[in-house]
Amino acid sequence: MAPLQLPHGRLGINRQDILSLAFNKGNNCLILLAHLTIDQRTCRTLVSVKLQCSWVYLLSSKMLRRVLCAVLFMGTLPSLAEGSQGHISVVLLGATGDLAKKYLWQGLFQLYMDQVSSGHSFTFHGAALTALEPGQRLMFDVLKNLACPPDEAPNRCAVLKDQFLKLSQYHQLKTAENYTALNREIETLLRQEGLKEAGRIFYFSVPPFAYTEIARHINSSCRPPPGAWLRVVLEKPFGHDLESAQQLAAELTSFFREEEMYRVDHYLGKQAVAHILPFRDQNRQFLDPIWNRQHVERVEIVLKETVDARGRTSFYEQYGVIRDVLQNHLTEALMFLTMELPANVSRAEEVLQCKLQAFQSLRGLEKSSAVLGQYQAYASQVQDELQKAQDYISTTPTFAGVLVHSDNLRWEGVPFLLTSGKALDERVGYVRVLFKNRAYCTQSETLRDAGHSQCKTKQIVFYIGHGALNTPAVLVSRNLFRPVMPEGSWREAVGQADLHIFGQPLSDYYMYRPVKERDAYSVLISNIYHGRKDFFITTENLLASWAFWTPLLDSISYQPLRLYPGGVENQHLLDFEMVSGEVAFTVAEPVELLNPNRLMPSDYRTIQSKFRQSPLVSAWSEDLISQLASDIEKTARRTVAHSGQFHLALSGGSSPVVLFQRLARHHYAFPWKHTHIWLVDERCVPLTDTESNFFSLHNHLLQNVRVPYFNVHPMPVHLNQRLCVEEDRGTELYAKEIVALVANASFDLVLLGVGSDGHTASLFPRSDNGLEGAQAVVLTESPVKPHQRMSLSLPLINKARQVFVLVLGKGKHDITTLLSRVGHEPRKWPVSGVSPSSGQLVWYVDYEALLG
Amino acid sequence: MAPLQLPHGRLGINRQDILSLAFNKGNNCLILLAHLTIDQRTCRTLVSVKLQCSWVYLLSSKMLRRVLCAVLFMGTLPSLAEGSQGHISVVLLGATGDLAKKYLWQGLFQLYMDQVSSGHSFTFHGAALTALEPGQRLMFDVLKNLACPPDEAPNRCAVLKDQFLKLSQYHQLKTAENYTALNREIETLLRQEGLKEAGRIFYFSVPPFAYTEIARHINSSCRPPPGAWLRVVLEKPFGHDLESAQQLAAELTSFFREEEMYRVDHYLGKQAVAHILPFRDQNRQFLDPIWNRQHVERVEIVLKETVDARGRTSFYEQYGVIRDVLQNHLTEALMFLTMELPANVSRAEEVLQCKLQAFQSLRGLEKSSAVLGQYQAYASQVQDELQKAQDYISTTPTFAGVLVHSDNLRWEGVPFLLTSGKALDERVGYVRVLFKNRAYCTQSETLRDAGHSQCKTKQIVFYIGHGALNTPAVLVSRNLFRPVMPEGSWREAVGQADLHIFGQPLSDYYMYRPVKERDAYSVLISNIYHGRKDFFITTENLLASWAFWTPLLDSISYQPLRLYPGGVENQHLLDFEMVSGEVAFTVAEPVELLNPNRLMPSDYRTIQSKFRQSPLVSAWSEDLISQLASDIEKTARRTVAHSGQFHLALSGGSSPVVLFQRLARHHYAFPWKHTHIWLVDERCVPLTDTESNFFSLHNHLLQNVRVPYFNVHPMPVHLNQRLCVEEDRGTELYAKEIVALVANASFDLVLLGVGSDGHTASLFPRSDNGLEGAQAVVLTESPVKPHQRMSLSLPLINKARQVFVLVLGKGKHDITTLLSRVGHEPRKWPVSGVSPSSGQLVWYVDYEALLG
Repeated sequence: MAPLQLPHGRLGINRQDILSLAFNKGNNCLILLAHLTIDQRTCRTLVSVKLQCSWVYLLSSKMLRRVLCAVLFMGTLPSLAEGSQGHISVVLLGATGDLAKKYLWQGLFQLYMDQVSSGHSFTFHGAALTALEPGQRLMFDVLKNLACPPDEAPNRCAVLKDQFLKLSQYHQLKTAENYTALNREIETLLRQEGLKEAGRIFYFSVPPFAYTEIARHINSSCRPPPGAWLRVVLEKPFGHDLESAQQLAAELTSFFREEEMYRVDHYLGKQAVAHILPFRDQNRQFLDPIWNRQHVERVEIVLKETVDARGRTSFYEQYGVIRDVLQNHLTEALMFLTMELPANVSRAEEVLQCKLQAFQSLRGLEKSSAVLGQYQAYASQVQDELQKAQDYISTTPTFAGVLVHSDNLRWEGVPFLLTSGKALDERVGYVRVLFKNRAYCTQSETLRDAGHSQCKTKQIVFYIGHGALNTPAVLVSRNLFRPVMPEGSWREAVGQADLHIFGQPLSDYYMYRPVKERDAYSVLISNIYHGRKDFFITTENLLASWAFWTPLLDSISYQPLRLYPGGVENQHLLDFEMVSGEVAFTVAEPVELLNPNRLMPSDYRTIQSKFRQSPLVSAWSEDLISQLASDIEKTARRTVAHSGQFHLALSGGSSPVVLFQRLARHHYAFPWKHTHIWLVDERCVPLTDTESNFFSLHNHLLQNVRVPYFNVHPMPVHLNQRLCVEEDRGTELYAKEIVALVANASFDLVLLGVGSDGHTASLFPRSDNGLEGAQAVVLTESPVKPHQRMSLSLPLINKARQVFVLVLGKGKHDITTLLSRVGHEPRKWPVSGVSPSSGQLVWYVDYEALLG
Repeated sequence: MAPLQLPHGRLGINRQDILSLAFNKGNNCLILLAHLTIDQRTCRTLVSVKLQCSWVYLLSSKMLRRVLCAVLFMGTLPSLAEGSQGHISVVLLGATGDLAKKYLWQGLFQLYMDQVSSGHSFTFHGAALTALEPGQRLMFDVLKNLACPPDEAPNRCAVLKDQFLKLSQYHQLKTAENYTALNREIETLLRQEGLKEAGRIFYFSVPPFAYTEIARHINSSCRPPPGAWLRVVLEKPFGHDLESAQQLAAELTSFFREEEMYRVDHYLGKQAVAHILPFRDQNRQFLDPIWNRQHVERVEIVLKETVDARGRTSFYEQYGVIRDVLQNHLTEALMFLTMELPANVSRAEEVLQCKLQAFQSLRGLEKSSAVLGQYQAYASQVQDELQKAQDYISTTPTFAGVLVHSDNLRWEGVPFLLTSGKALDERVGYVRVLFKNRAYCTQSETLRDAGHSQCKTKQIVFYIGHGALNTPAVLVSRNLFRPVMPEGSWREAVGQADLHIFGQPLSDYYMYRPVKERDAYSVLISNIYHGRKDFFITTENLLASWAFWTPLLDSISYQPLRLYPGGVENQHLLDFEMVSGEVAFTVAEPVELLNPNRLMPSDYRTIQSKFRQSPLVSAWSEDLISQLASDIEKTARRTVAHSGQFHLALSGGSSPVVLFQRLARHHYAFPWKHTHIWLVDERCVPLTDTESNFFSLHNHLLQNVRVPYFNVHPMPVHLNQRLCVEEDRGTELYAKEIVALVANASFDLVLLGVGSDGHTASLFPRSDNGLEGAQAVVLTESPVKPHQRMSLSLPLINKARQVFVLVLGKGKHDITTLLSRVGHEPRKWPVSGVSPSSGQLVWYVDYEALLG
């Protein structure tokens, strides 16, 4: 097809103003770009004469004081131009910073190239604190170097780059006046060009401490008029833990509406990560039956780096690998995998709700959920770069392997391994879903057809990039299914036949690669432009993630770090294993980096001593709970072996919750089937009330183990639709039940706690109720709400064969100290009356309660 | 050392009577055998002169009318002769049969070689129905051909074989007189030789129909005198199903005490199988932490044969692969793996108790637990050998893959795959325990140390024999542990480096082989001699196994068989997969062998029709239950989605049990957390009574799913320590609970059954109780025990939004027919009053109930 002749005469277009470039795209596509000094009305006319013109695009640049009219003729496209969709101003804050230089300007240029014919007009405003002149110079140095992507026709790109430069302008944004001025400039331009404003994008590529100030200025002086949208783009870190994230979020929320904020996690722009949800959606027919714990063996979410933190230690030393990579990038991938699929995966609100539910289902992390390491050179890098003393020891992990479990029915029991580290042997990122081998192949191995045997490994891998493949990819084992992939964006690819990925030759997989490899920031900037909020982190999402990670971050500050040499020399040093819901390094011996400022729990490891003439077990709380759980299990097994059943009376309150969780998760051999569960005390609320002791016990223990229904004995506080009324004789009822089932009414084990006022069970100071006499179960009054309680009496407790008292936390230090001095004074301190007449009493007191 | 000179002169030993053979065993051992016509007292004297004689052994053979005196001089052994331990008579019934020819005589000869110096004397009595002369000929033809084992010195063996022949004698055992005569002969011999009787072994190598007759004769005429033991050895088949096995066992028990019976499963004589329990015992330190569901991925117990059933179809056609191999051999191996280890593994009684417990824990098999096949040539072989018509179709499986689960805490969820078949691609037997990979290896694959990486497969294999290794062996992956093996009997071996076993090079394993490879029958005969009852199948063990297999055998008679060509051409045809607790062939399409005599359930697949003006779903019971379970789940999910909870009222009785099991095992997505479980009716017994409807519901459903404690609503039949007393107002209590929790007291789904008298819930004919009126819950009287019942009333049932009535089995055919004709007559047939006022009623009636 010959280049189309522009009837420029009729429109008064000057011949030398025409940059006419004709190139072949899809065989029948012509593009002509008119670079004119005409006004936009004239340009519109150009369209209205219907010269097979598909899009007319208007670009205005106040700086250049002329109007560009880009006319693209697409031979095959039937539609006419849509007319102007309005103007978009993009403001890049931190326009001369590292991220802007490396990714953001390029991303904005890509946006321009992609959207030049969208009907929107654009201006790009780089901004920084630097004064105008030097700032301009710095910025245009960056812009000059913008690259043309390999899949773009060089001529077209050159023209567009030229235009992009003309549409881009530097601003110093420092004071409130600067912001007002910017706002004025935008308004003036729009008025001058007769353009409607579509919206403004503010990209915060600045340190988080600057956020609030900038946000305030934008909110007060730079908001677009009603009818146009505002999008502020924020870069991590979004806080340091739950509290700081909440604070930052609260500040931002005072300036912006939730829908205006676009928090970037650039992993969501990685093509393989961004495709997880669409993949699950488009392959529902194959995945529905297998995307669950029945079929998935494990999931690995991995980002390995070869680089170390050199040059970035001032940032890294504050954050570490978990905050840098796991809390955000890997967690987002985890969510895409575990969340329930909304009916419509492109509706951000639905996706968000499913994601938040998935966060709710995550099992809480414990210290033992993670293995941590630090590469050997890190210490000296920190000393050098941060001018620390020679004896300064950093406890920042540069490697972490974390075992995550989701407790919903779909994923219960499936291990999700999140791993990342610096100074490792290779640079690679992937999300790997490994399926269980559920087949038995009757034919001997040597005779099996290698192609589709069900006995071969089955996996789906979202290969993020680098590594052996060195490209984003989606891999699906051929013995699983041939996936549905969107044709326009992914294409089937053939790899090197001899390349092995995750133990299998590449030929065992269906492999797909992006048609066009795109940088994460380009993808994200395009998503900002399209208002695809599902590619960004909402406040709720962010806080849910911090709520999940913060307890681990808090608990690992005392955790030893494994030192590793870095690179291939790490060998097996960083391999780790899952053992009953915990992880541990596989190789046991080598040096761990201790935190010398704090004694390690394992240095003390359950001190055995005496407290109030009875045995005392003491340790840091986590070790103490683990010891207590083991001791309870031992008692239970011994008792069941001896008498066939085990009667265990448990207290309410917060301390036992951790114990319940530990028992449920780590004590698979506990003889639950033969255990009877009794309550030591109960609040007078319905059992289904979240305040009920039984409710908590049910939630944290009973729901997760198999105690027969008949062996569970909640206290009858709720009878005849009323709570703890004398005449309903709930106490008698419970006492009768005890007498009927427990030999000699002597419990095998009673677990007690201690209140800071010295109460135990629900026996409170300054009340005789339940301290002596024949009554086995009593109603009592608590000084705190809910006041009414039901409790085992002291005489009944003292009939037990064993009594364990658990005391946890600094808040109990005073009463612990007091108790160590006083004698038997149950009226003052009911717990001092605990003294089993023929049984054994053991105190489990953590260091914080014992030592303060 | 020079041969020792026998001072024969002093003892009157004739020089030519001496067979003097000196050979070196362990460098300093001399054996001289005196083959003399001296009496035993003379021979004893030979010992008493203390010619460094370690054992003196007396062998008498009446037939040869002379006494043999074997003197063994063992240079290094310090002990003197122990003197005679008494005489043992071994009677082999079926002495000229196939098994005797192939294995048993050889095993007896091995026993003789091993035990010639044990202090016991022996005679061997072959017996059959054949007359004396031809029987003798036949038997000695067999004995002549006895082989000397390769590890035996040829000279010694030759002498011992000669003696063995002299000690062996043929008897015709047909009539009662024959047995009496045998008994007399043994007594006479013992008296003549002045020997004490130690015991008698009767080895039944005869068809099972002959057992009772022989047993009666032995018991009445051939028992040894008090003080000597009787051991009868029985060969399979031990019955055809539970009933026939019980019958046979009952008959045998009337003749023999349990400790006298030695039921052979020759797999227990296979060295690798026999070593499973000792291995577990000797490696407790390594296995204790990993021998459980946390660590074991799956277990495969496999016996593959290349031969087919040609020539044996008369046996095989009656038994098939499950009875031939799975019910006995593979089940025993399964038990050795799954049973809890007794403190002392060599105490037969302890082992048995643990085994029986393990049987109790096995989850019942269903039709869908097995895949079945038949090799193509089998049909014509049966037609030929059994003179069947050309259109005769055999439904006997020659291949089976069965998925077994154990429900105890140790093994819950671990798949045990039992597989065996004829005409497969290779002959091999193994027990393979595959461990989960719980490691994450941070180093990339290419850089991993191949030796001990925890990311490599971990397995323990008891290799029974044949296959690629062609030897019994115990293999333990090197990344697991180096096992403790008994030095005398197993030695570490190195295999071909390039040989791959279960996907791994042999060098990845510690491999052990028996020091001396022994035939299973030799091992077993030795164990009979030593009274090692733990190597044999007790009656309880046998019946437990049949109780486990019989339901499957019953249910698969209608199951299609997959035809397979045999040998390597089977390709993937017999590969199978586990899907939610069921198994199915992996490749779907090929021809299945249908049983044309019976319509397949899948041919009908849930007929939809009308019954009493309401929808009717009908199918074979298993399909019906599966349809009903799906329908309940669908209702539950829909209801929960709509109102947040699902109120389900369930009936007692036997029919729902299968439904409960199905719901518990196959409906992982059931919204249990939001389901309330109510009882339709209850018997007035304590809830923990096995007769209680709630107990059964708990056992089969609640124990296995996660319904919150608060959502479970047993009927309050047991109040104030008494059952269903009016004044305790249990019915009111339940009615109040319903009103309080169920909106409008309208259950979302009520599941009912029908009694053959037309009762439903616990509403019985000829009683007005509960048929109308305002009472929601009533006490009623059942015509059968326990008489007292509590039940929802008909008006309450009819308020439900959905009512499903389940009717199963031939026993319900008459009432079903009746109900199809009668109208609304609840006083005669309470179920005819079921008619939800605004809800839906659906009948689920199986073909047997519907069609008789």
